[in-house]
Amino acid sequence: MAGNTFGKLLQITTFGESHGASIGGILDGVPSGLSIDIESIQSELDRRRPGTSQLTTARKEHDIVEIFSGIIKNEDESLITTGTPVGFGIQNNDAKSKDYSYLKNAYRPSHADYTYEAKYGLRDIRGGGRSSARETACRVVGGAIAKQLLFAASKVEISAYVERVHDISVPFPPAYFERSVIDENIVRCPSKDIADRMIQRIEDVKNTGDTVGGSIVVVAKNVPSGWGEPVFDKLEADLAKALMSIPAVKGIEVGSGFSGTLMKGSEHNDAFRTDKVGKVNTETNRSGGIQGGISNGEEIVLRIGFKPVSTIKKEQNTVNRDSEEMKIIGKGRHDPCVLPRAVPIVEAMVALVLGDHLLRQRSARL
Amino acid sequence: MAGNTFGKLLQITTFGESHGASIGGILDGVPSGLSIDIESIQSELDRRRPGTSQLTTARKEHDIVEIFSGIIKNEDESLITTGTPVGFGIQNNDAKSKDYSYLKNAYRPSHADYTYEAKYGLRDIRGGGRSSARETACRVVGGAIAKQLLFAASKVEISAYVERVHDISVPFPPAYFERSVIDENIVRCPSKDIADRMIQRIEDVKNTGDTVGGSIVVVAKNVPSGWGEPVFDKLEADLAKALMSIPAVKGIEVGSGFSGTLMKGSEHNDAFRTDKVGKVNTETNRSGGIQGGISNGEEIVLRIGFKPVSTIKKEQNTVNRDSEEMKIIGKGRHDPCVLPRAVPIVEAMVALVLGDHLLRQRSARL
Amino acid sequence: MAGNTFGKLLQITTFGESHGASIGGILDGVPSGLSIDIESIQSELDRRRPGTSQLTTARKEHDIVEIFSGIIKNEDESLITTGTPVGFGIQNNDAKSKDYSYLKNAYRPSHADYTYEAKYGLRDIRGGGRSSARETACRVVGGAIAKQLLFAASKVEISAYVERVHDISVPFPPAYFERSVIDENIVRCPSKDIADRMIQRIEDVKNTGDTVGGSIVVVAKNVPSGWGEPVFDKLEADLAKALMSIPAVKGIEVGSGFSGTLMKGSEHNDAFRTDKVGKVNTETNRSGGIQGGISNGEEIVLRIGFKPVSTIKKEQNTVNRDSEEMKIIGKGRHDPCVLPRAVPIVEAMVALVLGDHLLRQRSARL
Amino acid sequence: MAGNTFGKLLQITTFGESHGASIGGILDGVPSGLSIDIESIQSELDRRRPGTSQLTTARKEHDIVEIFSGIIKNEDESLITTGTPVGFGIQNNDAKSKDYSYLKNAYRPSHADYTYEAKYGLRDIRGGGRSSARETACRVVGGAIAKQLLFAASKVEISAYVERVHDISVPFPPAYFERSVIDENIVRCPSKDIADRMIQRIEDVKNTGDTVGGSIVVVAKNVPSGWGEPVFDKLEADLAKALMSIPAVKGIEVGSGFSGTLMKGSEHNDAFRTDKVGKVNTETNRSGGIQGGISNGEEIVLRIGFKPVSTIKKEQNTVNRDSEEMKIIGKGRHDPCVLPRAVPIVEAMVALVLGDHLLRQRSARL
Repeated sequence: MAGNTFGKLLQITTFGESHGASIGGILDGVPSGLSIDIESIQSELDRRRPGTSQLTTARKEHDIVEIFSGIIKNEDESLITTGTPVGFGIQNNDAKSKDYSYLKNAYRPSHADYTYEAKYGLRDIRGGGRSSARETACRVVGGAIAKQLLFAASKVEISAYVERVHDISVPFPPAYFERSVIDENIVRCPSKDIADRMIQRIEDVKNTGDTVGGSIVVVAKNVPSGWGEPVFDKLEADLAKALMSIPAVKGIEVGSGFSGTLMKGSEHNDAFRTDKVGKVNTETNRSGGIQGGISNGEEIVLRIGFKPVSTIKKEQNTVNRDSEEMKIIGKGRHDPCVLPRAVPIVEAMVALVLGDHLLRQRSARL
Repeated sequence: MAGNTFGKLLQITTFGESHGASIGGILDGVPSGLSIDIESIQSELDRRRPGTSQLTTARKEHDIVEIFSGIIKNEDESLITTGTPVGFGIQNNDAKSKDYSYLKNAYRPSHADYTYEAKYGLRDIRGGGRSSARETACRVVGGAIAKQLLFAASKVEISAYVERVHDISVPFPPAYFERSVIDENIVRCPSKDIADRMIQRIEDVKNTGDTVGGSIVVVAKNVPSGWGEPVFDKLEADLAKALMSIPAVKGIEVGSGFSGTLMKGSEHNDAFRTDKVGKVNTETNRSGGIQGGISNGEEIVLRIGFKPVSTIKKEQNTVNRDSEEMKIIGKGRHDPCVLPRAVPIVEAMVALVLGDHLLRQRSARL
Repeated sequence: MAGNTFGKLLQITTFGESHGASIGGILDGVPSGLSIDIESIQSELDRRRPGTSQLTTARKEHDIVEIFSGIIKNEDESLITTGTPVGFGIQNNDAKSKDYSYLKNAYRPSHADYTYEAKYGLRDIRGGGRSSARETACRVVGGAIAKQLLFAASKVEISAYVERVHDISVPFPPAYFERSVIDENIVRCPSKDIADRMIQRIEDVKNTGDTVGGSIVVVAKNVPSGWGEPVFDKLEADLAKALMSIPAVKGIEVGSGFSGTLMKGSEHNDAFRTDKVGKVNTETNRSGGIQGGISNGEEIVLRIGFKPVSTIKKEQNTVNRDSEEMKIIGKGRHDPCVLPRAVPIVEAMVALVLGDHLLRQRSARL
Repeated sequence: MAGNTFGKLLQITTFGESHGASIGGILDGVPSGLSIDIESIQSELDRRRPGTSQLTTARKEHDIVEIFSGIIKNEDESLITTGTPVGFGIQNNDAKSKDYSYLKNAYRPSHADYTYEAKYGLRDIRGGGRSSARETACRVVGGAIAKQLLFAASKVEISAYVERVHDISVPFPPAYFERSVIDENIVRCPSKDIADRMIQRIEDVKNTGDTVGGSIVVVAKNVPSGWGEPVFDKLEADLAKALMSIPAVKGIEVGSGFSGTLMKGSEHNDAFRTDKVGKVNTETNRSGGIQGGISNGEEIVLRIGFKPVSTIKKEQNTVNRDSEEMKIIGKGRHDPCVLPRAVPIVEAMVALVLGDHLLRQRSARL
């Protein structure tokens, strides 16, 4: 309730600043008996890690996850959860604090410098402190375990991809793509042609010291009907909170989203039908897999809009702590576009929400 | 945590089905010493009430709020909160259950009939039961008290309006309008000309048995800088959850929203400056009043997209409980467009979130 | 989190003052499909109701529970839960506010008058307001539903009795007694002889304008092994909180309690053994059915100590709002001993805790 | 809500098993601007650490706390909180897992072996895993920070001592003692003579392979009136939960406790009076500093009963995983009496509760 905990039954709490000793977290509520693949957790972290392509900051975050508790070895050396909290940490190895001394008195526009000081009366100026997107690495660790839980319990799979960078968009509607397809290129767009254009755009913008945003689509498949808790903890409400808590997110759409608001009811409704084996499904999926706050068995589909990165290598107007107007130019190593690295973060947050509701649904019926 | 409670320090819990004896709720965490204007609470409820114009369902919900606790009379007969929970109820007077018997076996497309049964194994078929938007009346009561708290403590005011119905939109960007302007017409759009066109569109669509959606803008002014709790309970994250939990919402935007994702960083950043009296503010407000999850003192600006109402008076394909395909036609009295009545609901949810963070901010500093 | 909500998955929130319009609550998280016996709920309320014997206050609380939501009729007119929140209320019919006007400026010793004003800056002086034990009626309603859940799901039964009044105690160790035995006499002690002595003592004390306390034992049987959530939400920890939140409680013991602290480890340990059908159990039950925070399948046994009622008909020293010393004498109708009426309250709080952990245990394993 | 988180606004979450890589936790909600004395935190840990006297297990837990986040250096190198979560860890250095292999199939009587398996289907057999009292080291770290918060904000101080070991008790009623007095002897009893007798008793019992329990008194002074949240989060209710969640606790008393239940109301009530400077206080303190769930400004006084340690070096009856009866003898290094080391744990849990309510009280009034 103090702001750094998320979830009700599957519950993650995180700590850590960009340039402190380490970041980490505790994932509580993981059921016992879940086989854990550590490499899979690390591979999710690697997807988020900067410095892996020319599109991302050169900052070297080694980002090796260490797990401290909640998982033991079976006799065959495989790993299994015990039901107790999973504590984990990631060292901060490349914390060049000196890069940030010039920020001591200046507030970077559209960053959290000003607001953290307004709230707390002081701030850790090194790399944005707690407001740095570095904290999302902990979400990725928690989300990776949630993914393993979801697949083991219900075959649920979650996949996100970059749909649009600046004004370059894929021409097809949201759909589920395998990770092998998405990770084929460094921008994580499932269309190779569009990916090439996106990469070129990011390069061009980067060369002018500027940044771009765009949108990510995330799809969860095999979610059983019945997940979600009306009236406040509706599945889409919890997903919206989870996704809106990711740095730089400015918009969320479920299913048909804003374009659906231009339709008439007769155009928008998803008619029910039965498939060959008699299972109920819907002809269309404008509901995005959720009706009345509860999953209906169709794919869960969301779109997330990310603003352009705030740190630009251009002179900007700002003020200092004494409310004096001044100029500032971004330094350090920053991404010209966060979307490729945000893909695993989006998936992680969706996994944490679905994992929570997987468990919550167990109490719905006598 | 069981789904019908919202907020951490200012906390609302609601109950009630569309056709049960009554609906109601408990608002806990209201500080003591707050003067309460009951008429103002009732007037918010009246704004949400159906049957007040030709745009809304003819269902007569009298919707008189009764307050049972948490408020006492001063010696001058004025009302004041005691710090104990405010219990309240609203009778269900016009519950014509017979209207819904035909739904016993059928699932209405894009309603919650199917998903409630998937979750609970049974459902209250009368008027949608708990999934009915009738439950939002309780949110309006809680939000009305939160508004009084916000104004008394910090002069915060919240105002929402209908920005777009179907494809008819106001031509100006989001801004704060006084309620007197907004409530001047039955569609709650602050532009009289556009309002007239919206009303005509709703009438036209209604006459064909169809429905439309659109978008609502909500603006909160005078929110001090410093509200919001990173990293998960960011102000925009809690707002997104609050708004996405309203029935029929499919999209949420903060500040620049999706259109901001088409800008470059140099175009999107909000430069800091000082005003005549030396107070820091920003030249633009693409952040929508929130940076890094914390309010920055600018207006908080959100856009909410509502899908068209699911109940249409046209034949649709669906299935029954035995998974047999069948046809269904909507009966009863339903709104062709929910947006005018959703305005006070949107305001209420924003007020509940801001009221919660007003109190949470009191613990930020030693 | 604002103080009037209890439980995680089975969650009760209550409202109401002694002399307001009504008291009530919301029980959220009740699973769907539970058959509900309303008469059984009312009968629990009747056990708590004052005015039923010469031992209790003559205040007439009719205490008829009304249920507003969350329960529907089956075709055979039987009642069943829908999984949505159960809202309920109890009218305050006999609220003689005038009795309390003399308290406007005085703080009754060992009551909550002084502390409520210290906390909130004002208080509802009528009958103690929210601090009145009247609010426990709502706990009894919630607990009665929890009991029905526990029995339907796991055959769990909970029974409390008065073990001691003042210094008159039953001579046997804690054990499970049927309600029919306990309710045979007005003091709710399962030993007729001791009950007679207790009644006489209460009468004697009442005649001098004084009051007495004592202890209650509560036993839950058929609780399966595995309930409880280490390390903070241990079953005994949640039970201790639940019971210590009842007005007038000053002490809690689990199993062997304080007398167990006088034993050596070799005397206190509960040796495991198997019964005839091979089921593991323990030779003794000094653990009180809980080990390491988790139920072990034995009877759960607790003792609760209640102080004497604070309202006495004798002159006492106190101060007024202006911190002036003064004298006060209790007026109105009050119990000389709360224990008989506290029996159903104790059972209710235990039921709410166990019902919560019944549901929480469902998420323990993959 | 998954069991390893405690508190609402000041919130601790812990992880870690006795023989895993490390234990640790996250303290969220610490206000910004609090000066932190790391040595003071470490000194609390040292008080809990085993191997420091002949009364405790020889197990060497070095127990050096590392703090990872939430605290930065001022320009003068002093430390200050930032308002972000404080992550911390303690390495497990002396984890001799081999000691526990004999427990693979056996359930130690009155330990949590059986119940963890009943709950989770498996368990970490090394040293009790999560059920080990080793986890309490994390509570001590969190509590040490809470103490610094409480003193800085309100001069609150908390002090516990061993009142009784087995049947050897101090002859005086609960009172506040300075730590310097309490820590003068290894049993942490403020009476030297009684302490000597306690130490002798523990030695004698240890020599027979047996163990003893006893009671601890804890007193908090300078707690302002007004802390505590009726009706469920009463101050004594939250304290009872906090203390009952400590391993081996079987009983809790507030103020007069069970002995108070033998008094009449006229004997038990705490009369109000004013002191020389006109401040209201009470003649006696049978309420233990709490009335109606809210602190009244007097000393908060609690007694906690600890059962004898379960691990004894004597043969006991038990069963194995196959429900076969067998014999077991305790091995390894264990305390013959936990009370001296439990003193800082008790203080920590009281500090966490009071720190939480310090913050919660800030929202009580407009």
